[in-house]
Amino acid sequence: MSANDTTQYARTPRTTPTRYRDRATWERAAIHAILDEGYLCHLGFVVDGAPVVLPTIYARVGDRLYLHGSTGSRPLRAAAADPGLRVCVTVTLEDGLVLTRSAFNHSVNFRSVVAHGTAHRVTDPEELSVALDALVDQAVPGRSADCRPADARELAATAVIRLDLDEVSAKTRDDGADDDPEDMDLPHWAGVIPIRTVRGTPVPHPALPPEQPLPAYLRDAR
Amino acid sequence: MSANDTTQYARTPRTTPTRYRDRATWERAAIHAILDEGYLCHLGFVVDGAPVVLPTIYARVGDRLYLHGSTGSRPLRAAAADPGLRVCVTVTLEDGLVLTRSAFNHSVNFRSVVAHGTAHRVTDPEELSVALDALVDQAVPGRSADCRPADARELAATAVIRLDLDEVSAKTRDDGADDDPEDMDLPHWAGVIPIRTVRGTPVPHPALPPEQPLPAYLRDAR
Repeated sequence: MSANDTTQYARTPRTTPTRYRDRATWERAAIHAILDEGYLCHLGFVVDGAPVVLPTIYARVGDRLYLHGSTGSRPLRAAAADPGLRVCVTVTLEDGLVLTRSAFNHSVNFRSVVAHGTAHRVTDPEELSVALDALVDQAVPGRSADCRPADARELAATAVIRLDLDEVSAKTRDDGADDDPEDMDLPHWAGVIPIRTVRGTPVPHPALPPEQPLPAYLRDAR
Repeated sequence: MSANDTTQYARTPRTTPTRYRDRATWERAAIHAILDEGYLCHLGFVVDGAPVVLPTIYARVGDRLYLHGSTGSRPLRAAAADPGLRVCVTVTLEDGLVLTRSAFNHSVNFRSVVAHGTAHRVTDPEELSVALDALVDQAVPGRSADCRPADARELAATAVIRLDLDEVSAKTRDDGADDDPEDMDLPHWAGVIPIRTVRGTPVPHPALPPEQPLPAYLRDAR
């Protein structure tokens, strides 16, 4: 996948917004870039006609998402059976609060991806192993090579579901305060408060030898 | 609502987790504290039998959530009609990545709230005005008093939905790396990488007079 990739996912009615269409994109590279910056998604599914939304971790591998299934047994059972589990997976990155002179025009700068489809439980041990490595590396790139891999018992106890990226779009707002012309002379402060998700200094487990160095993939992490 | 409030929301089957029950709470004060730290939620609803999950902003007012409805017209039409819109509203705060010596025991420190119920569109102008102030103040406390309030035309154009907090629970993981005893001597680094969502220096709109000071509620903000 190159950064010059301009291919697009197919648009469908539900990935075509009814408002702010200029904020939407179906471009594969743009969608992958947002997905690759996050590691936490919100997984939606339907139970007895009612929606359920749970946070969980994910990894992107090519045009596929893997989701960790510690999200209760009911959706996982559905994902394991035919015809799979209908899901909506949403990833949102917060970038800023937009303060305008009028209450009405306040907004949020953000990047989000919404993916629709049918998820299936991963059962093939080889695919499961790849998915688990990807889940570990999505949050901490390089980590999967520096921990004990799951053994057969752990693999059997791990629930991962797979969603092919197919019906998916991204939305982005990245702009300043946008007031109506007649409000521009009001005395209220206007502008953007940037928001970032940052990582602090890693806190070693108390049982680690004091001389054990921080691995390079943690020293150099964002 | 005092910090000593130990009242609980009623437990129901779907707010009782099947795993990690010790991470769950139904305590009103604990749930409100998580909700009050966030401003962005993921709203789930069902369209033609399929789940949809969209990010939007919310505010808590007592035992009620108000959600900004710039989330497409279909759910809003449903919320405006009888019997309302079945929703699941989830708020997740990320606190840390937990790295264990085994891939299997990796985890995430987080706090989340999941609320189930039926949402209704707010139509009463007085309630709508309260809700809009609350939405502005949830992200930036104090801001609603320092901007032009919505006029009648803007109120009519604003879609806000209301969800009473009734069937709601919180989940929290706030712990270190928890390895199996037989993995404790493995050479891999283990510990917690703290994660925080931080706000940067506010960026004034270019049209603001250069001498206009930053309001106190922005200077002192977290």
